[in-house]
Amino acid sequence: MGRLTPYVPGEQPSNPDVIKLNTNENPYGPSPASLAAIRAETSDSLRLYPDPNATALKSALADFHAISPSQVFVGNGSDEVLAHIFQGLLKHDEPILFPDITYSFYPVYCGLYDVAYATIPLTPNLEIRLDDYTPTNGGIIIANPNAPTGQALKPSAIETLLERNTDSVVVIDEAYIAFGGESSVGLIDRFDNLLVVQTLSKSHALAGLRIGFALGHPSLIAALERIKNSFNSFPLDRLAIVGAIAALNDRDYFDSIRQKIIATRERLVGELERLDFRVVPSATNFLFVSHRDNAAGAIAEALRARSIIVRHFDHERTVNYLRITIGSDDEVDALLTALKNIQV
Amino acid sequence: MGRLTPYVPGEQPSNPDVIKLNTNENPYGPSPASLAAIRAETSDSLRLYPDPNATALKSALADFHAISPSQVFVGNGSDEVLAHIFQGLLKHDEPILFPDITYSFYPVYCGLYDVAYATIPLTPNLEIRLDDYTPTNGGIIIANPNAPTGQALKPSAIETLLERNTDSVVVIDEAYIAFGGESSVGLIDRFDNLLVVQTLSKSHALAGLRIGFALGHPSLIAALERIKNSFNSFPLDRLAIVGAIAALNDRDYFDSIRQKIIATRERLVGELERLDFRVVPSATNFLFVSHRDNAAGAIAEALRARSIIVRHFDHERTVNYLRITIGSDDEVDALLTALKNIQV
Repeated sequence: MGRLTPYVPGEQPSNPDVIKLNTNENPYGPSPASLAAIRAETSDSLRLYPDPNATALKSALADFHAISPSQVFVGNGSDEVLAHIFQGLLKHDEPILFPDITYSFYPVYCGLYDVAYATIPLTPNLEIRLDDYTPTNGGIIIANPNAPTGQALKPSAIETLLERNTDSVVVIDEAYIAFGGESSVGLIDRFDNLLVVQTLSKSHALAGLRIGFALGHPSLIAALERIKNSFNSFPLDRLAIVGAIAALNDRDYFDSIRQKIIATRERLVGELERLDFRVVPSATNFLFVSHRDNAAGAIAEALRARSIIVRHFDHERTVNYLRITIGSDDEVDALLTALKNIQV
Repeated sequence: MGRLTPYVPGEQPSNPDVIKLNTNENPYGPSPASLAAIRAETSDSLRLYPDPNATALKSALADFHAISPSQVFVGNGSDEVLAHIFQGLLKHDEPILFPDITYSFYPVYCGLYDVAYATIPLTPNLEIRLDDYTPTNGGIIIANPNAPTGQALKPSAIETLLERNTDSVVVIDEAYIAFGGESSVGLIDRFDNLLVVQTLSKSHALAGLRIGFALGHPSLIAALERIKNSFNSFPLDRLAIVGAIAALNDRDYFDSIRQKIIATRERLVGELERLDFRVVPSATNFLFVSHRDNAAGAIAEALRARSIIVRHFDHERTVNYLRITIGSDDEVDALLTALKNIQV
């Protein structure tokens, strides 16, 4: 296993005074109902194993998405859910396909599970062109909206892909769907080769708890359950289960924080454009931007000197871009003040 | 992956009035300090990802075991830790070796990761005889104390095994070590092919939180980190990390509950022997017992009719045994009353 190249997540600085716009966390806390549910479960009940099937959480997710619990698989963060998908559903003779610029964990999973893959270039505008995903493949995985670019595809485009790609599993990774994109979950009843993956990390401000899930045909869900039950009987702990259920059931809070983030994003887009940034259209809680005159790496370093951390990737095609998480209005104001003052 | 045979964990009944002596949970709750630490972390901080390296928890485990943090790997329950070990360290041309009667997840991991294995029979007294584990192997995994039998090996016996088995990884699974066995962790400085796996599920009454770990040479730990970082950046959530640290630091509480469990066990052994049970010597928080006259399955059903659940395995060699978790004194009294009254 010596040739594994692990994924490197964004930095988690220990200094709480840093303005952290580098890992796409939600600037608002979880639902108060979620925190109350966790506190209520913080008791002697922790001596007991969790429900290995997380039945109550699957029911809450099924209610949230108006589907059946048999169409729901849950895991310890969407990273674990994706890992099981790569191991169980994407290993075939033909390579799987995903964009050249996307979530950089996908090739890592391929290394871990010996899955062949080929990358399909984004267009010069950094868009995914689904016509480039030809039928001869072992599977297709598309982040929608894509990361780190932030652009979203319409479900109608996904539907067209599914109509001609019927022989392999299509995974739509919707980690950022809560912030303006349209989910493809409505297609799972029609296409038995579609899996939609989501997480509560960003949408419900629960990155600290690790709750991910996949939605799809019961036969795909059953295949993932076999993997999970051969790997770890109890991937979700008791506190994550109750916290997730309460967060899902508090829809007003969910709507209020995502609307605030979308409003802050739209304001930040305008301000950055006035500062000569090009901003890729975003349906997420982050912006992917490049500056007309200044190098992205230099801007990132200058921001870091002012205790503001943003993400800079070194992929050849995106070396001049920064990914900036939408923070609170105060954090965004501090970012804008810093950008106006730095000399690079 | 259609031929996977998943592990089936013990039943988790939803009825709280059931006396649950089937999954080896601790009858006492977690340390009050652990519960307080979890409540303190149940805040807006849950919007942030956990420390991907769980550095503070590794330090607490290193302190607890008087070793270095570079000798510590942590995961989402010892099941996840074991899965990574099977995937990363035990797949070779030669089969790995483990007892014919032991934790039944081991062959499941072998199926998941295509690891060849051979089982070595326990002696007629249900003991592990390490002389039977010959040097030609891809690895050796020994639960010590063994489950479901409960018997412990001395570290000196493990040491003898390690002295002659130097070419493959030896895993000692110490899930039950807190209840009277002697840990082999003192051998990790001398044998760079030794991994000791433990969990806080039973010892620290934290089954509901999922905290497992492996202790060994830094090169083995680094290999596990590569697997983990290719699988899931954040396997341990924020609440599990703080709860585990506080539990580890409350040694008085840990000692008090394990001493209570050991005392209850010794009392239960005597009472069961008076009821014509044969009791396998136990260094764990469970007993493995067979009755002189009555079939184990019939006893288990009669207990279930009285809302007491114990574990009955259908392995040919142990079909006439029951595994009974050491509960609280009240639970053990209820068990004994039921056993005196049932007619099978």
